[in-house]
Amino acid sequence: MAVKYVYSFGDGKAEGRGDQKELLGGKGANLAEMARLGMPVPAGFTITTEACTEYYRKGRKLISLLDKEMRKALARVEKSMGKKFGDPRNPLLLSCRSGARSSMPGMMETVLNIGLNEATLDGLVAKTGNAWFVWDSYRRLIQMYSDVVMEKAEGIEPAEDQGVRKQLERAMDKLKQERGYKLDTDLTVDDLKRLVVEYKGIVRRVLGKEFPDDPMEQLWGGVLAVFRSWNGKRAISYRRIEGIPDEWGTAVNVQSMVFGNMGNSSATGVAFTRNPATGENKFFGEWLINAQGEDVVAGIRTPNPLNEDTRPMDEEHKGLPSLEKGMSKTYKELVAIRNRLEKHFRDMQDIEFTIEEGKLWMLQTRTGKRTGPAAVRMAVEMAQSKLIKPEEAIMRVTPAQLNELLLPVLDRDVEDKAIRLCGGLPAGPGGATGQAVFTADQAVEWAKEGKSVILVREETNPEDVEGMRAALGILTARGGMTSHAALVARGWGKCCVVGAGAIEVNAHARHFTVNGKKIKEGDWISLNGTRGAVYEGRLPLVAGAEENPYFTKFMVICDKIRKLDVRANADTPEDAEKAYKFGARGIGLFRTEHMFYGKGAEEPLFILRKMIHSSSSEERKVALNELFPYVKRDMKATMQAMRGYPVTIRLLDPPLHEFVPQSEDERRRLANSLNIGMDELKKRADELHEVNPMMGHRGVRLGITYPEVSEMQIRAILEAAAELLAEGKKTLPEIMIPVTCDVRELRHQKAMVDRVHAEVAGKFGKKNIPHMFGTMIEIPRAALKADEMAEVAEFFSFGTNDLTQMTFGFSRDDIGGFMPEYVESKILPGDPFETLDQSGVGQLVECGIQRGRSTSPKLKIGICGEHGGDEPSVIFCHNIGMNYVSCSPFRVPIARMAAAKAVVLENKAKKGAAAKPKAGKKAKTAAAKGKRKK
Amino acid sequence: MAVKYVYSFGDGKAEGRGDQKELLGGKGANLAEMARLGMPVPAGFTITTEACTEYYRKGRKLISLLDKEMRKALARVEKSMGKKFGDPRNPLLLSCRSGARSSMPGMMETVLNIGLNEATLDGLVAKTGNAWFVWDSYRRLIQMYSDVVMEKAEGIEPAEDQGVRKQLERAMDKLKQERGYKLDTDLTVDDLKRLVVEYKGIVRRVLGKEFPDDPMEQLWGGVLAVFRSWNGKRAISYRRIEGIPDEWGTAVNVQSMVFGNMGNSSATGVAFTRNPATGENKFFGEWLINAQGEDVVAGIRTPNPLNEDTRPMDEEHKGLPSLEKGMSKTYKELVAIRNRLEKHFRDMQDIEFTIEEGKLWMLQTRTGKRTGPAAVRMAVEMAQSKLIKPEEAIMRVTPAQLNELLLPVLDRDVEDKAIRLCGGLPAGPGGATGQAVFTADQAVEWAKEGKSVILVREETNPEDVEGMRAALGILTARGGMTSHAALVARGWGKCCVVGAGAIEVNAHARHFTVNGKKIKEGDWISLNGTRGAVYEGRLPLVAGAEENPYFTKFMVICDKIRKLDVRANADTPEDAEKAYKFGARGIGLFRTEHMFYGKGAEEPLFILRKMIHSSSSEERKVALNELFPYVKRDMKATMQAMRGYPVTIRLLDPPLHEFVPQSEDERRRLANSLNIGMDELKKRADELHEVNPMMGHRGVRLGITYPEVSEMQIRAILEAAAELLAEGKKTLPEIMIPVTCDVRELRHQKAMVDRVHAEVAGKFGKKNIPHMFGTMIEIPRAALKADEMAEVAEFFSFGTNDLTQMTFGFSRDDIGGFMPEYVESKILPGDPFETLDQSGVGQLVECGIQRGRSTSPKLKIGICGEHGGDEPSVIFCHNIGMNYVSCSPFRVPIARMAAAKAVVLENKAKKGAAAKPKAGKKAKTAAAKGKRKK
Repeated sequence: MAVKYVYSFGDGKAEGRGDQKELLGGKGANLAEMARLGMPVPAGFTITTEACTEYYRKGRKLISLLDKEMRKALARVEKSMGKKFGDPRNPLLLSCRSGARSSMPGMMETVLNIGLNEATLDGLVAKTGNAWFVWDSYRRLIQMYSDVVMEKAEGIEPAEDQGVRKQLERAMDKLKQERGYKLDTDLTVDDLKRLVVEYKGIVRRVLGKEFPDDPMEQLWGGVLAVFRSWNGKRAISYRRIEGIPDEWGTAVNVQSMVFGNMGNSSATGVAFTRNPATGENKFFGEWLINAQGEDVVAGIRTPNPLNEDTRPMDEEHKGLPSLEKGMSKTYKELVAIRNRLEKHFRDMQDIEFTIEEGKLWMLQTRTGKRTGPAAVRMAVEMAQSKLIKPEEAIMRVTPAQLNELLLPVLDRDVEDKAIRLCGGLPAGPGGATGQAVFTADQAVEWAKEGKSVILVREETNPEDVEGMRAALGILTARGGMTSHAALVARGWGKCCVVGAGAIEVNAHARHFTVNGKKIKEGDWISLNGTRGAVYEGRLPLVAGAEENPYFTKFMVICDKIRKLDVRANADTPEDAEKAYKFGARGIGLFRTEHMFYGKGAEEPLFILRKMIHSSSSEERKVALNELFPYVKRDMKATMQAMRGYPVTIRLLDPPLHEFVPQSEDERRRLANSLNIGMDELKKRADELHEVNPMMGHRGVRLGITYPEVSEMQIRAILEAAAELLAEGKKTLPEIMIPVTCDVRELRHQKAMVDRVHAEVAGKFGKKNIPHMFGTMIEIPRAALKADEMAEVAEFFSFGTNDLTQMTFGFSRDDIGGFMPEYVESKILPGDPFETLDQSGVGQLVECGIQRGRSTSPKLKIGICGEHGGDEPSVIFCHNIGMNYVSCSPFRVPIARMAAAKAVVLENKAKKGAAAKPKAGKKAKTAAAKGKRKK
Repeated sequence: MAVKYVYSFGDGKAEGRGDQKELLGGKGANLAEMARLGMPVPAGFTITTEACTEYYRKGRKLISLLDKEMRKALARVEKSMGKKFGDPRNPLLLSCRSGARSSMPGMMETVLNIGLNEATLDGLVAKTGNAWFVWDSYRRLIQMYSDVVMEKAEGIEPAEDQGVRKQLERAMDKLKQERGYKLDTDLTVDDLKRLVVEYKGIVRRVLGKEFPDDPMEQLWGGVLAVFRSWNGKRAISYRRIEGIPDEWGTAVNVQSMVFGNMGNSSATGVAFTRNPATGENKFFGEWLINAQGEDVVAGIRTPNPLNEDTRPMDEEHKGLPSLEKGMSKTYKELVAIRNRLEKHFRDMQDIEFTIEEGKLWMLQTRTGKRTGPAAVRMAVEMAQSKLIKPEEAIMRVTPAQLNELLLPVLDRDVEDKAIRLCGGLPAGPGGATGQAVFTADQAVEWAKEGKSVILVREETNPEDVEGMRAALGILTARGGMTSHAALVARGWGKCCVVGAGAIEVNAHARHFTVNGKKIKEGDWISLNGTRGAVYEGRLPLVAGAEENPYFTKFMVICDKIRKLDVRANADTPEDAEKAYKFGARGIGLFRTEHMFYGKGAEEPLFILRKMIHSSSSEERKVALNELFPYVKRDMKATMQAMRGYPVTIRLLDPPLHEFVPQSEDERRRLANSLNIGMDELKKRADELHEVNPMMGHRGVRLGITYPEVSEMQIRAILEAAAELLAEGKKTLPEIMIPVTCDVRELRHQKAMVDRVHAEVAGKFGKKNIPHMFGTMIEIPRAALKADEMAEVAEFFSFGTNDLTQMTFGFSRDDIGGFMPEYVESKILPGDPFETLDQSGVGQLVECGIQRGRSTSPKLKIGICGEHGGDEPSVIFCHNIGMNYVSCSPFRVPIARMAAAKAVVLENKAKKGAAAKPKAGKKAKTAAAKGKRKK
């Protein structure tokens, strides 16, 4: 047999290993690893991801290829567990679960209790002495199997409420109603037997098929259903969001069932080796007595705390029993396993366990999802305790996780005085404020309209994923820290409060009530997902990272390793201050035009408009003289806020038409001030209109046609610097010319800078005012002619936003018409404005660097624009030898981390190359070698 | 002495040579060459262009550097001519003329009769016995010198009519009026003496200086005035138009005066060795008895014909004496010189001669300017007679000259019946129709407003140049074939009729009268510049080249040599037909959308609009089905017109918003047809609006988001081809995808082509319908990723219009705001949309070719768009290894010629490289080697 598709595990042995995640999926590999570690894993086997891929090529033919191998593995399981699959006297029951390379919680299917049938029912009753448990299990099997295997996997899409699952649920609800029962557990064995008969009838009627009685048929059904669920709508949508390739496929884990629902000495639980919300190094989990695993995560019952130390301190949790106290021996066993697992896997683990009549079974271990704050804290603490190296700590945190720390939280002062509606579990970090909505669809719709929404649900399920993504925050009435809502929210770093038991959600009527208050659709509420609290109204949010000590420590680790400098894009003293706090050392992009936006800019904006609507150089100069003090003031304040670090000031960039006033009043005031009629004003404004303003009269083109506009800015920069120097403060302005395509544009502007510099230096009695002269590289031609550009420019700053526009011919304002389709049908891997298109636009960036340094080896090179805060793009910038990246203040920490990761990856690649000396180093790394100066 | 600044000539000897044009200027080099050939050249010397350049560096200091050298040369002249400069008894008089590398007629200054002063006057009178001539010469010297040297060269810019020239003219007019004279020659010697006194007084009063009496001072004044005139306004403006570098400078030719105005045995003339208007191989020229050279070109007197054979046959010329008859011995001498000159210089020469009391003096020879038809005819005839090689013949014709042949002429049938106002000399070729204007400024102004104008002047002078350029045609009342107007018009290939003596121009009143008719400003007139005729009204124009036999012969010479294929951009059967006639063999660009423009397209346009305003794929498909037959019909007809040659059809390219109807009526009809309200229609149209449509939802982006739109076009193309094949006709459609940036776009469209092809082939019972699949390369990223693109595309067509837009970030619609300034201040050498920017955009084109052929060595590569008809761009396309160029039908002959020139230049470069084996061949040529297949 050429290919091995089935890997057995159990009894302290396993055919697979923990590092075979690609082949066995995450769950399968870790089950094998746990078995190898001698942990109590119910025996089973894993069908590989290759089998899944093969299934998509061959279809049902795969069965015959697999059958022999699977029967052999099944025999081993029977031997290990001392039971036989389909044996009426001592039947083995199996679970069948998906397991992809990376976890996709709730996105694919699971079938439990496979092997129960008319024949084995009685044998199991006889063996367990628990008829209720057996009949309940059978009822669950039919319910799950008919839904997952017989309906969904066959691609049947019934109208709402007509699906087999709903019909079976209704049958049970009807019976409970007839009997006057409240809970499922109130049903008697006879009730269950009647229900089973009814269930089978419904299956026959709705699906036109019998519920299969043959255990092997059941098993095959389960296996194929898992395969098929890989291409279910929800799974595809999840993969798209998470960026998981469709080609990976899922493995199938077939494992002997163990039961946590065999009475009060049985239990089931889910735990994290450290707190996944805060990162605190405490064993943290939830469990339920007499329950199956799905009961814990489904959020139907509020689960108990694992131990006393991590028990939530609210009313609801105060009285719940902990495993530590209730089953102390088993708890100790579990703690020992927890300690071994963390040491072995060197990361926080997310584990599932079941206690079957007192015996502990480990069902799963995997690297646990965590919030951003938790990821950072764990990385720092694991590095401190030498569990991992600093380099590894850096690689442990994703940009999204770091972003969570930077995301807003509720303003603590305001929060303390706000109207608290209720508490809940802190399932997703940070703060959120928005309007309440009660369905996922509504969340998506309102979000599209630009509204801020909080999705409020009784509990969430996988169908809600899109709505959860659209919402700023999620609130559920039920479920624990391991519920679906909590897992998904944590994965995304989204603010989330779960298990807020005090609220009663009426999705149909679109409101919820809490402590006598009614919150209707559209009402504003606020969440604190870090504390677990719900407030009425719209509370203000503030930046989160500054108070987090682990954040600071983590950044120190990153800064020690990284080589790239990190600057910020900032246009005001406030932004510069914020950027400095986030660790920016220098401003990479100060946009002169931004001083004309927003509040407080009315007067300079008005003068700017006068300038723009001038019809002669003389008229324009009058307005420019008026504008000068404002411009100098703002530049000086920003330079001062950067404490002597370089400040790159880009001269006026946008097409002038952007500043034409829209309101009648403003137009009239402008016309009066210019002493012209409204017609003349309109004529002048119309002359500024352009067909494609992005490629029109802007940037240096303005500086050349209206040199007086450049001159005013240059003078403002140099005078601001001179004044600071005179005040004994340090500063280094870098004058940057935008939208250049030819060195002669630079020569034109450089001559002006030199002239104005001489004048200003003379005025201030100085020989020299330190400054630099450079250019944006944002037009393809500028990159192609970079050797010439570098003869005049002392620095380059790659404007990859515009460079992406020109290189793709994509107007960023207009991609809405086709970009979603392009990404959906995989014509592009993603929006190139988010992550730099390394293979296309990146060629021009590399070309620009190489050619620029060919004539000016010491050329300072950076990037400004949004790619400067995107992890893969920053790594690329490092690899091709830039000196710095610049991004918005909030992204500065992400850039610092990405820059450190770049070094770690580079060293790794070097090691790899050293190990395989024949595989030459990448040209990119070579090109960058020794070129970057700190 | 390190640098030699002065080169003597005369007496059958010369220090300079004819190939030293860069150093001596064209005139100086040719005077030297004529002297070497033993022709009768008045002795003189040339001050080099280097001296001019040096003058702009050192100013008047140059005088001391030059003085010694010049005095030495002067002594030689004195010896040769047997006269002495400043000698009262036997004075030598000198002329001082400019002479740049290439002729700039009338743009720079000339001073004649230098050396006449109070002392030499009487000596000259004694020697010549012609007091009148001497005093008239003195009068002329003061007039010319005070204007050129004392006023203009000093940078004095008097108010209109206040200049010294005008004031002197007024003094003479006043005297003539007092005396009742009509002509200048009516003045007596006493009158002239009185005038000289008056002149000197006016000079003193107006310029505050004495007219210089020292001959050497006069000479230096003349030399420096010539230097300064290089940077005069008119000269700069001319250089800009002609593309002459400012750095060249001008030489100064100082030459002994000979006089054509010493009585009736004296004469002066200007001639061409062949007819410069038609190219006919006949000695052609004009002369005047008892006149100085300036009289012939100034157009004040109508000159006489040189010989009987070329005498114009109209009333005015019938009675004039020819040199052939009037001075037959001298004429024969001149003919012998003419024959030697043509043989020596191997090109048509433009010569000036003077006959001083029976002795022939050659004053100048230079390569003569010619009209386009003349250039082509001469090239063909000189090649036929083996005077030059075919390669040289090709290089002799400029694109502008060839363009003249393609330029419109008056429709002969209509012309024959039109109202003929009068005749004139055929000074500039082709036909023109426009509104009469009477000043150069008015011509410029009206042309800017988009009007077609004919500039009508008594005579033109260098101040009129801008207006002449702006006009479509030029008409003057006076002047001959060598007048200013004629020379300039011929240089530009502009339609021009001169010497239309029947008209009386009243520029002040803005009208002219002719045979009792009054034509006012704004009235339409039409010119036949090839025949020399003026018509009333607006006559229709037709294409000119087809009837010209020399054109056809010239094209055959080109086609034998060129290697590039030449195709045309054509969107209709009519255009395809025209293109075929102009020699296009294949269509390089058929723009689907053009079938929706213009007359006859109303119905398809309406359906297209329905399609565009559809809100669902279904609605769209209905409209597409309606559109299909129109599209197929047009494609089929165009393919058929191309007679089996390949036709590249570009799928729909522009943003849909371009087709939104503007008129209320059309909008209403559209809304009705779509069964929607006007509000809904507006909403749908608004959704199509884009901020930067050039980079928006267009080209293949439409084809991917609305695949049904691509599919309809593909089906139309393949069905059209299948139908033609079924009719026994050959065709090869090439399906071209526009605006691509990634190979996956091509894969998407290719899959559709393959599917539709299978369907259409099936429908027509064929296995295969021959077709090709390819892409535009017009987005920078497509060029960068050309290796991947070529894995799917079978051909590339470089769309350098869009590629230039994206590479420069220049929206072609919006460059008006800065491009003039960019060209004016030399930031760019020219508009990159006219001539391909080889060093920038060209890099991407080369990159695209190299990478494309790296994965697909046989890739067919061409260019479409306007650079395909621009000579330097076509040469570039040849050098980098393209297979074909495609351009508008009218430019096809230019492309054919440019492609031939490319081969000639390539062979020349190869020979050069072979001669100097160390200088490596250019990489470009190497890259192209062996790649192009015919």
